[in-house]
Amino acid sequence: MQAIAIRRGADAPAVVELPRPEPRAGEALVRTLRVGVDGTDHEVIEGGHGGFPEGEDLLVLGHEAVGVVEDPNGTGLERGDVVVPTVRRPPDGDPNGWFARDQADMAPPEATLERGIAGAHGFMSEYFTSEAEYLVRVPESLAPLGFLVEPVSIAEKAIEHANASRSAFDWRPESAMVIGNGSLGLLTLAVLGGYDRRYCVGRRDRPDPTIDIIEGLGATYVDSRRTPVDRVCDVHEPIDFAFEATGFARHPFEAIRSLAPAGVLALLGVPEPWTFEVDGGTIHKDVVMNNKAVVGSVNSAKRHFRSATDRIESFPDWFVDAFVTGVHPLSEFDRAFVDDETSIKRAVQFGTL
Amino acid sequence: MQAIAIRRGADAPAVVELPRPEPRAGEALVRTLRVGVDGTDHEVIEGGHGGFPEGEDLLVLGHEAVGVVEDPNGTGLERGDVVVPTVRRPPDGDPNGWFARDQADMAPPEATLERGIAGAHGFMSEYFTSEAEYLVRVPESLAPLGFLVEPVSIAEKAIEHANASRSAFDWRPESAMVIGNGSLGLLTLAVLGGYDRRYCVGRRDRPDPTIDIIEGLGATYVDSRRTPVDRVCDVHEPIDFAFEATGFARHPFEAIRSLAPAGVLALLGVPEPWTFEVDGGTIHKDVVMNNKAVVGSVNSAKRHFRSATDRIESFPDWFVDAFVTGVHPLSEFDRAFVDDETSIKRAVQFGTL
Repeated sequence: MQAIAIRRGADAPAVVELPRPEPRAGEALVRTLRVGVDGTDHEVIEGGHGGFPEGEDLLVLGHEAVGVVEDPNGTGLERGDVVVPTVRRPPDGDPNGWFARDQADMAPPEATLERGIAGAHGFMSEYFTSEAEYLVRVPESLAPLGFLVEPVSIAEKAIEHANASRSAFDWRPESAMVIGNGSLGLLTLAVLGGYDRRYCVGRRDRPDPTIDIIEGLGATYVDSRRTPVDRVCDVHEPIDFAFEATGFARHPFEAIRSLAPAGVLALLGVPEPWTFEVDGGTIHKDVVMNNKAVVGSVNSAKRHFRSATDRIESFPDWFVDAFVTGVHPLSEFDRAFVDDETSIKRAVQFGTL
Repeated sequence: MQAIAIRRGADAPAVVELPRPEPRAGEALVRTLRVGVDGTDHEVIEGGHGGFPEGEDLLVLGHEAVGVVEDPNGTGLERGDVVVPTVRRPPDGDPNGWFARDQADMAPPEATLERGIAGAHGFMSEYFTSEAEYLVRVPESLAPLGFLVEPVSIAEKAIEHANASRSAFDWRPESAMVIGNGSLGLLTLAVLGGYDRRYCVGRRDRPDPTIDIIEGLGATYVDSRRTPVDRVCDVHEPIDFAFEATGFARHPFEAIRSLAPAGVLALLGVPEPWTFEVDGGTIHKDVVMNNKAVVGSVNSAKRHFRSATDRIESFPDWFVDAFVTGVHPLSEFDRAFVDDETSIKRAVQFGTL
């Protein structure tokens, strides 16, 4: 079968020929439909994130997949079930406590493998196998958009944890700010539709398709070149819920100032080491005196995949049409990895239902 | 009646003669039993925190009080009820939404007055009045220790919010670290008795009464001159729950590293502005990749006063005896404000039941 992989030392993915995998006990064989591409894939390709499976010089890419069960192999699944795989897997022979307690998403990186990212092959192949417990059934109608379930689940988890952090009192947030107008930022902005007022921070000039989506969603575009993140509270309003989705290391330190009293900041971006000056005293005091919270979030659990499934079904058609900027056949897979200002979310199509 | 107050321009509190207050509608008159002193009082005296009531040049001190109802004045209270007052009050004529929703503890500083701290007289007087809704009844047996209810409630609130922030998954914390061996730190260490392993960070040499208490509670004393806060994870173990109670501005940035995966840091200290270098990229990445949380907490609500009441009744006698280093009559009130290494928690005695 054909797969899209990155080889050790290469700077771009390539199509490779691999044997079709055989499901082991407890695993199902899945025929791949579509697999999305995101910033993590680009980081994996650039070598800044993740790693090859042990003893191998090639990593099959892709962690945002939807497929159809080809061979249930005695698991509870049925042939024809449309499924989305979760990403984390226990390191071989070590089903550690995080997995045993069904909270692999809360594990430290060293306690997990991540399919398509770190130490385990991804889903960009015509077929893949997975333990049935890591396959989430989705409605057949969601087959075309099932590759959005994983990225939406990332937003669902962060929002769940942020809400939990404010659950000891009667929190009534009204304003939300998403920092970043990449694919995760825009999905999150759509997920946060219940907020009265939403802001999305970017660094783009008009005309721009992401700004069109932001405004189409009824949110306000904030150009951080004019209004830095720490000034949003002055220029617009204090923010009850802020969501950082760029990985720019200074953002958390700036965003805290723009939080409203009792507000929360969710962090999802992954920066590199960078030492800089902050007024740590003022930040520390602000967090205390205004009861602010900061919650880091990575990966997601099956419950987040399930809420993501419901969420995607509620997205308006225009949003999905504008958001998915390309679904490319395997023969043109490199177009799915284009990362320019016309690209929001692209995917590779491996098959159809 | 006599009261202990700080005058504008003075650098030490003094006993002043004030008229005994008359309760207004909805208020009860309380005869004061004991009032504790803490770091906030010292900050108020030094002028670094809080402020005088509008139009006045004198602030009656004290926010950690216990008293007995002298005149219920038609409120639901009864004469003889032992009560502890909460600290925050709505600014005159502005019962804003925070108070209306019974979450004054989550309000920003500018939306509240704080009795004995900011804009409203405290409880260090032979009598005080308070709206009955801000008086929490405690058992008569707690009259001698009722002045500990407010400081314990501060720990209870921070722990409640920290636990809430970890409530979206099955969190099973085992290790706790309290940064600071002042009175709040030691109370918190006692409150966290359910943790398997506890550490308390200070900067004192043995012999020291706070180290004796730390070890008496079964916790490990960590001298931060030898083991900085960011090395506790290496020298001892990663920390599930960390509690910052010093207000040293660098601590949060250091403590995040020592958190275990999915751990939480509660911040309670209040530093001054201070700009310094941090590796913001590494901190940001660590918070994300390890699902860490940071929760600021100030003040407390009536439910925290109630849980504090139960908590204090569970404290062993030896702890209370070692912790309360002095209860001084009004004639020797200045001894309650001694702030040396032999002082842990001191109080002024105004009366007895």
